[in-house]
Amino acid sequence: MGGLRTLPWYVAGSQVLGVACVVITGVWMGHYRGGYAWDGSAQEFNVHPLCMVLGLVFLYGDAVLVYRVFRNETKRSVKILHALLHMMALIISIVGLVAVFDFHSSAKISHMYSLHSWCGMLTFVLFFIQWLLGLGFFLFPWASAQLRSWYLPLHVFFGLLLLTMSVGSCLLGITEKLLFSIMETYSRFTGEGVLANTLGLLLVCFGVVVGYVVTREDFRRPPNPEEEALSVHFKTLSEGEILSSP
Amino acid sequence: MGGLRTLPWYVAGSQVLGVACVVITGVWMGHYRGGYAWDGSAQEFNVHPLCMVLGLVFLYGDAVLVYRVFRNETKRSVKILHALLHMMALIISIVGLVAVFDFHSSAKISHMYSLHSWCGMLTFVLFFIQWLLGLGFFLFPWASAQLRSWYLPLHVFFGLLLLTMSVGSCLLGITEKLLFSIMETYSRFTGEGVLANTLGLLLVCFGVVVGYVVTREDFRRPPNPEEEALSVHFKTLSEGEILSSP
Repeated sequence: MGGLRTLPWYVAGSQVLGVACVVITGVWMGHYRGGYAWDGSAQEFNVHPLCMVLGLVFLYGDAVLVYRVFRNETKRSVKILHALLHMMALIISIVGLVAVFDFHSSAKISHMYSLHSWCGMLTFVLFFIQWLLGLGFFLFPWASAQLRSWYLPLHVFFGLLLLTMSVGSCLLGITEKLLFSIMETYSRFTGEGVLANTLGLLLVCFGVVVGYVVTREDFRRPPNPEEEALSVHFKTLSEGEILSSP
Repeated sequence: MGGLRTLPWYVAGSQVLGVACVVITGVWMGHYRGGYAWDGSAQEFNVHPLCMVLGLVFLYGDAVLVYRVFRNETKRSVKILHALLHMMALIISIVGLVAVFDFHSSAKISHMYSLHSWCGMLTFVLFFIQWLLGLGFFLFPWASAQLRSWYLPLHVFFGLLLLTMSVGSCLLGITEKLLFSIMETYSRFTGEGVLANTLGLLLVCFGVVVGYVVTREDFRRPPNPEEEALSVHFKTLSEGEILSSP
């Protein structure tokens, strides 16, 4: 378990990458794209990338990381923090979505025609469903132990999948925005193009570090003996049920 | 282990999705973008998407799946098949890269300026390194057992990461190609735009099914008792070494 000493470095690295992504998005939209407003103009559009990177990438990633960072707190406290960070991500990404729909309506641009919009909306809808299911299954006592243990690996798989899809949707958005704004000069390696490409790579790096920390075997939370006993008991029971069923 | 009976359905689903992606890419480039050639023209460019989807997505995904499909063959045979499929993926993706570089040179377009090219080239270079390391560590007897057991989880992590990055790079390429070719009509939900967006979603689905099959616990290969014994013996030895080191 010597590898566990490296965990804080990975977590610190993820935070540096995450903050860098939010700051670079802010600078790109604030400095190169004319700043922010809420009036249906292109400046209202600029709220969209900032909210999505902050909400569906950075806060989402941190919500996933809490299970590795808070290793000795009770599972219930960590679950509540996980749900709260995801709720912040949800609210901020709704603001980001309203911004782009508002801008499209004002500028009489069709909604939802691009691959970016298809992937982004799919990610958002699945994220919202996953958040509701997470609340119902794990935070409130509505689901049976059997249902919880069936859903847990799916929740973990879809959790990482949706972070990946968030990062991918951001990269599609970066490509779209660059081709709409600087198609003529993009191929001359201008400052804005290089900055936005760098943002894309940093978003990938953030996703990779979070994914690595969450999937690495020796970074897992130490099993709780009480929970273990319960799960073995439950397993015996459910296997008994399966064996005795016709 | 009842879930294992569903494995063939997931594998079949992945193959339907993978073939659909290759066919749709072929139809998009063949029907909507004027077909194929090798003369520096836009038709030479059309070879690029087809090769990348066939090589770095479909064959790459299948190379990853062999460990779940061939469960009872010797590990050595499966390793050789894994390496051969990856070699085919490598050769086909090199053809695809030559096609786009050739086209850019003929058309006097800068190389490597877009986020798609940055992500795609990073994916290809890491894939090539991973393939060489895989050969050296696992297929030829060049690495010690200690080195192998250190590299294995990294090989698995980067394997799935690079499939994800391949799919992501394809989606960036789809967005670029659509905005370069049909920027004016894309927002009117024309046939080409909807077909290419659908291709993007199918590529995501292929990656998701492969990722799910490979990461699902009860789909893993049954452990080989001989390999187990060796690994326990090795663990005792290496832990002994660590304990006795200063």
